[in-house]
Amino acid sequence: MRPRAEKEAQLRQRACVFWFFGLSGAGKSTLAIQLERQLAEQGFVAHLLDGDNVRTGLNRGLGFSDADRTENIRRVAEVAKLFVDAGLVVLCSFITPLRAHRQLAQEIIGTADFVPIFVDASFETCAGRDPKGLYAKAKAGQIASFSGQGSPFEPPAADEAVFRVATEQVSPAQASAALWSFALPRVRAGSVA
Amino acid sequence: MRPRAEKEAQLRQRACVFWFFGLSGAGKSTLAIQLERQLAEQGFVAHLLDGDNVRTGLNRGLGFSDADRTENIRRVAEVAKLFVDAGLVVLCSFITPLRAHRQLAQEIIGTADFVPIFVDASFETCAGRDPKGLYAKAKAGQIASFSGQGSPFEPPAADEAVFRVATEQVSPAQASAALWSFALPRVRAGSVA
Repeated sequence: MRPRAEKEAQLRQRACVFWFFGLSGAGKSTLAIQLERQLAEQGFVAHLLDGDNVRTGLNRGLGFSDADRTENIRRVAEVAKLFVDAGLVVLCSFITPLRAHRQLAQEIIGTADFVPIFVDASFETCAGRDPKGLYAKAKAGQIASFSGQGSPFEPPAADEAVFRVATEQVSPAQASAALWSFALPRVRAGSVA
Repeated sequence: MRPRAEKEAQLRQRACVFWFFGLSGAGKSTLAIQLERQLAEQGFVAHLLDGDNVRTGLNRGLGFSDADRTENIRRVAEVAKLFVDAGLVVLCSFITPLRAHRQLAQEIIGTADFVPIFVDASFETCAGRDPKGLYAKAKAGQIASFSGQGSPFEPPAADEAVFRVATEQVSPAQASAALWSFALPRVRAGSVA
């Protein structure tokens, strides 16, 4: 296999994994989809992995037990690593509720390539947005293990270095602009961010 | 997520999966590595998936039982599909011993994107080459389930449409040239192969 450095040179970019984590409804996928589009417009080659294209395929059969959540994250991280080896910028959008999950992803992908982005909004705000109707279902007791209710969500620890986007404190445009300023130097070839 | 067609347009290529199958030692990886290099030299964006980067990561923990072989193929096919969605040309190099395995990969990836390549050499020839020393180990009884000895390898059925490269009948250069002539029209943007 051709070395990653050759692939990155061909694509004129630095590969890495932007790993968006946070509660359902916090805005992970919205931000990730927007970043993917912005990257493409600037000529970067990026790809988004999220529940929509992973839960129905590679991770079909995995549920939401602790063990299955961990295996879900493990496989996504391994796939993200394969994309990084191919020279691509990867955007992963998963709740990743536990610190242990983020640590696992970081170990597999490698600290140098793992860029965690905490999409931060309170449970109440997310429940109010409820874009997928999941909070209503959880409240009605129809989801056994829902992150933030019945299943824990651990915010980043003090020593967990993450880029934080607080989607209830800034406008969508501000959130997106802040993310872009953070992300661009990370993927630009020859930059040292 | 941006649609695949946009990604293919950005990369100026058509995505697909060249799936190399055949006995250990038949020449799958040699051909795949060469094709990956040739594609890159022509500006195509390709990535190789093989046992080396999958068995140690995503498929760690899977062995060589029938069920595990099938799960191995299933996961690789799902990952290959994700790469195709990203617009890439994928080269998969796996023994894929059973017709059912090839059918599974085809079903997951989709007939239009699955391009099977049978790297054909006899058991005796492969045992003579034995690049990884596996045939010697199998002969010594150190490998329980070895494709071609103890574990079946089913050559393509009459109705299994595959591109065949017979590596004991042509020189490596001829094999590679034939493969290139076959592969190039398949990935060139705007071509109808």
